[in-house]
Amino acid sequence: MLQFLLMQNTFRGKEILITGGLGFIGSNLAIALVKAGATVTILDNLTPGQGGNLFNIAPVKENVSINYSDIRDRLAVEQVVKNKDYIFHLARQTDHILSLTDPFPDIDVNIRGTAIILEACKKYNPRARLIYAGTRGQYGKQVKLPVAEDAPANPRGIYEITNLTAEKMVLVYHDVHGVRGVALRLTNIYGPRSQMLHDHYGVVNWFVRLVLEGKTIPVYGDGKLKRDFLYIDDCIGAMLAVAATPACYGEIINVGRPDASDFLTLAKTIVKVAKKGRVALTPFSKERAAQEPGDFASDIAKIEALTGWKPKTGLVKGLQKTVAYYRTYGKNYW
Amino acid sequence: MLQFLLMQNTFRGKEILITGGLGFIGSNLAIALVKAGATVTILDNLTPGQGGNLFNIAPVKENVSINYSDIRDRLAVEQVVKNKDYIFHLARQTDHILSLTDPFPDIDVNIRGTAIILEACKKYNPRARLIYAGTRGQYGKQVKLPVAEDAPANPRGIYEITNLTAEKMVLVYHDVHGVRGVALRLTNIYGPRSQMLHDHYGVVNWFVRLVLEGKTIPVYGDGKLKRDFLYIDDCIGAMLAVAATPACYGEIINVGRPDASDFLTLAKTIVKVAKKGRVALTPFSKERAAQEPGDFASDIAKIEALTGWKPKTGLVKGLQKTVAYYRTYGKNYW
Repeated sequence: MLQFLLMQNTFRGKEILITGGLGFIGSNLAIALVKAGATVTILDNLTPGQGGNLFNIAPVKENVSINYSDIRDRLAVEQVVKNKDYIFHLARQTDHILSLTDPFPDIDVNIRGTAIILEACKKYNPRARLIYAGTRGQYGKQVKLPVAEDAPANPRGIYEITNLTAEKMVLVYHDVHGVRGVALRLTNIYGPRSQMLHDHYGVVNWFVRLVLEGKTIPVYGDGKLKRDFLYIDDCIGAMLAVAATPACYGEIINVGRPDASDFLTLAKTIVKVAKKGRVALTPFSKERAAQEPGDFASDIAKIEALTGWKPKTGLVKGLQKTVAYYRTYGKNYW
Repeated sequence: MLQFLLMQNTFRGKEILITGGLGFIGSNLAIALVKAGATVTILDNLTPGQGGNLFNIAPVKENVSINYSDIRDRLAVEQVVKNKDYIFHLARQTDHILSLTDPFPDIDVNIRGTAIILEACKKYNPRARLIYAGTRGQYGKQVKLPVAEDAPANPRGIYEITNLTAEKMVLVYHDVHGVRGVALRLTNIYGPRSQMLHDHYGVVNWFVRLVLEGKTIPVYGDGKLKRDFLYIDDCIGAMLAVAATPACYGEIINVGRPDASDFLTLAKTIVKVAKKGRVALTPFSKERAAQEPGDFASDIAKIEALTGWKPKTGLVKGLQKTVAYYRTYGKNYW
């Protein structure tokens, strides 16, 4: 509660830009920031298949400005970064499956798009604080769990590589050009406002859709693969806590949980919570297997030490909220 | 000698593509491969300021094919990769100073250009062996010398980040798509055929030009910064040894020296060898200082174990050859 009040003061009256603000994380962030009294501008172009959905911001649609633009539109980006206090950079090519067959959208949107934001800040708003949201996929395969920020980063796919590259650019602009930036590595996030049209990313939410449609959840391999699934409200809390903490800038910071669940447990819990659907084990495709980094859990000692943040929502509670949201609003997502 | 004979057999009659083959390393490689009996195709577009120079291949100009093309021309690249046994990928935006003010050429040429080569191999020549030449700059600042391949990679500039990204893509295509690739991390290479028009990269050679013109070598800071300067013939030997060794594919491999020299010693040695010029200490610029990764020396245990390669040419001998080359052919370089 103290943390929440502090944040209200931090963001009240502040000018915020959220790139990809009509997507899953961006829209939840926009809603939280409007509630905290900030003036929010969203930059998004609703790229099909990437999670952008106008319904996501329904609760605050009168209170945010939307600037429809591609992140790669340099002139547009130069205008919208001006006078912003905080920039949450979430616009991304997120389709992990696409990146297996075509690396170019990832390179163009995730790397060049981030460079466009950084250059725009350098030229037109060097006092902005930039919060970059990367992925735990940047770590690749790890043997020692939970994984801390100083573990080697050996990503196994183009999506993950391009996120790592963008992170490194953010840190170079912080060090060399004085554009303050912090690089988050988000674990698997689930909850309301994630896309529900395909299973190319956002696997927890996809499982929820299958169950709500009375279908079978296909769990890869033996289902024992572990992930630290994090509920969206916890993720938003972490992002705001980091943004509000000056000591976080210039750092790489994990956002996840040290306690992981396996996919079979996840799937069975969804079925139990929804009282629908069923679970079946299914083999990995060859390419999925080659990119699969194994078990994962996040060491969050750093973010806890810097900001006091820790996750509050367990898997059952988070899934209950997720199932309830899509039961009510599912027609806006599939 | 045994190594040399083995290589002659390895490359005799083989089809080779060298991207950036009119540049410093590419042209020396082309000459060596023609001598080894290979059929060499060069892809280059002589981008101004990047080191491409037709004079570089004068000794073999009747024995190589030149395909003038930008590495980013997908259709052209798709044609030239066909039927090649080995592809040495050296085309790069190499101007470290440019990348301080404009990150986009590095992203486009170094990252997207490498993806174009990889996709072309995947589609049209999956049996090719790809040798990617990155830079020791990918390591960034290191405290423990010499630096081995498993040291953390924290590059401090856009040029170095884009090289690291390209390396990671090469390794993903090796692991996931079966395009065999090896990623070299080359230290500071010097010797005949490097560009001599500016000091944005290739600092040893630039010092040689200053001295040959009777000018003063400006050495940054106190001149005690250490680097493992490697003579070009040793670099070419390493690249051919790696290319010829199947166990190297899928690996990251240093090409350098474990014994470093400092910049002041380097500059004084050049003056001594050339019997001309002088040396003066000069302060770092602010941006150079921010990107300066400190002392460096390469741990080469891995390449030595895999291929038997080790450097043969010391600094004095290498500088004598370099000075002699530019004394004779300088008019073709400045």
